Amino acid sequence: MNIVLLDPRQTESELWSISSKRQLEHLRQHVDVQVGDTLKVGIREGKRYLTQIVEITDQVIRIQSIQEESVPKKLPVTLIVALPRPKVLRRLIMDAVTIGVEKIILLHSYRVEKSYWQSPFLQQLDQYITLGLEQAGDTIAPKIELYKRFKPFVEDVLPTLISENYPAYVAHPYVDAKMPYAIEHGCSVIIGPEGGFIPYEIDLLIKNGCQGVSLGNRILRTETAISYVLGRLFSAS
Amino acid sequence: MNIVLLDPRQTESELWSISSKRQLEHLRQHVDVQVGDTLKVGIREGKRYLTQIVEITDQVIRIQSIQEESVPKKLPVTLIVALPRPKVLRRLIMDAVTIGVEKIILLHSYRVEKSYWQSPFLQQLDQYITLGLEQAGDTIAPKIELYKRFKPFVEDVLPTLISENYPAYVAHPYVDAKMPYAIEHGCSVIIGPEGGFIPYEIDLLIKNGCQGVSLGNRILRTETAISYVLGRLFSAS
Repeated sequence: MNIVLLDPRQTESELWSISSKRQLEHLRQHVDVQVGDTLKVGIREGKRYLTQIVEITDQVIRIQSIQEESVPKKLPVTLIVALPRPKVLRRLIMDAVTIGVEKIILLHSYRVEKSYWQSPFLQQLDQYITLGLEQAGDTIAPKIELYKRFKPFVEDVLPTLISENYPAYVAHPYVDAKMPYAIEHGCSVIIGPEGGFIPYEIDLLIKNGCQGVSLGNRILRTETAISYVLGRLFSAS
Repeated sequence: MNIVLLDPRQTESELWSISSKRQLEHLRQHVDVQVGDTLKVGIREGKRYLTQIVEITDQVIRIQSIQEESVPKKLPVTLIVALPRPKVLRRLIMDAVTIGVEKIILLHSYRVEKSYWQSPFLQQLDQYITLGLEQAGDTIAPKIELYKRFKPFVEDVLPTLISENYPAYVAHPYVDAKMPYAIEHGCSVIIGPEGGFIPYEIDLLIKNGCQGVSLGNRILRTETAISYVLGRLFSAS
């Protein structure tokens, strides 16, 4: 947690209040906060501030704003990823948010188990976003969309996301073209499930405007591939 | 698991044997292997082969080699990382190995809890390496070294790793120089603990030849930073 993210309602009085149990525990145990300390705070969907702690009780920490700080920019990228196993979902969303992905699309695919769509973890996406924002020092949540059917998404939605200055790259081990790097435009990045997309899916993606690109002959786990690819694509920024 | 990694002793007869419980379970449950199927296999510290399954029993799967396959190259990088929390260690080592890091150094730092060095997980590094190699399709383990004292490492060991064509970059949020990208030489990459290196440590690293470089104003978790940085540095390869 590199900033404490507050709901706008917590910042309506002159003194702002931190009252979430998770945040209070973190501040007590990991940061050992004291009255007078400064604290970086963000307002969800709003600005970021350096604040000072003016009161600490069991239930609440009260702070006052000292000065505004800048909110980090997002990367101009739509991450389209096959829905991962529930235990990977939290880390994946948190990392994508931390890195600054603008929009996340969770997609069904042949090798995604149907049961993943029933996972209670899918109800907690907003919590994972909060954790990612607090890690990054960001305040603006990315958009998240879920598509439970592969073909209608690829045929009807995906083409509307693609343009000359906003291509879509699908990571695929068996093509010659390499994943580009240091790009200076936005793009969509499509990452398959464990075991990869099946040939039918790759064909459909490419038929609908995606560029199949290789990351070399090492096969990375989904979560690892996401940060590796984003580090590569946006190395110039 | 994208290849099955065997000990050389399992490949001394004409038919090779897969007998590890973990590997047998994976092949039965996730791959549903049958006699006649092909299987990618690597020999630890040796070559990689496409093989065919000739016998499946409860205790063993026997295979015969069909043809040699190429082992992916390593990245010319030494990853020097503050010892992470035990539960992160497995993922971190596995990911670094999967991405192809040539050498990994686990280092103490002020913000590393001393208890981490007592963790039983540190006895399992070889297992984590195996998992990373099997994920990547690699057969050659990276070297791993552990340094429980920061200052002697930085003053006595680190300078011997640095040369004109093999610089050392330390990720540090508060400098102007950016982490380079698409480099065409080897390097060391130094990643701090959660909470970062303390100023004394950063100063000592820089005094001993490291370049402090920034990854932008988002603060990534250690594991995320590793794949993000490696994707960026080696984007041209």
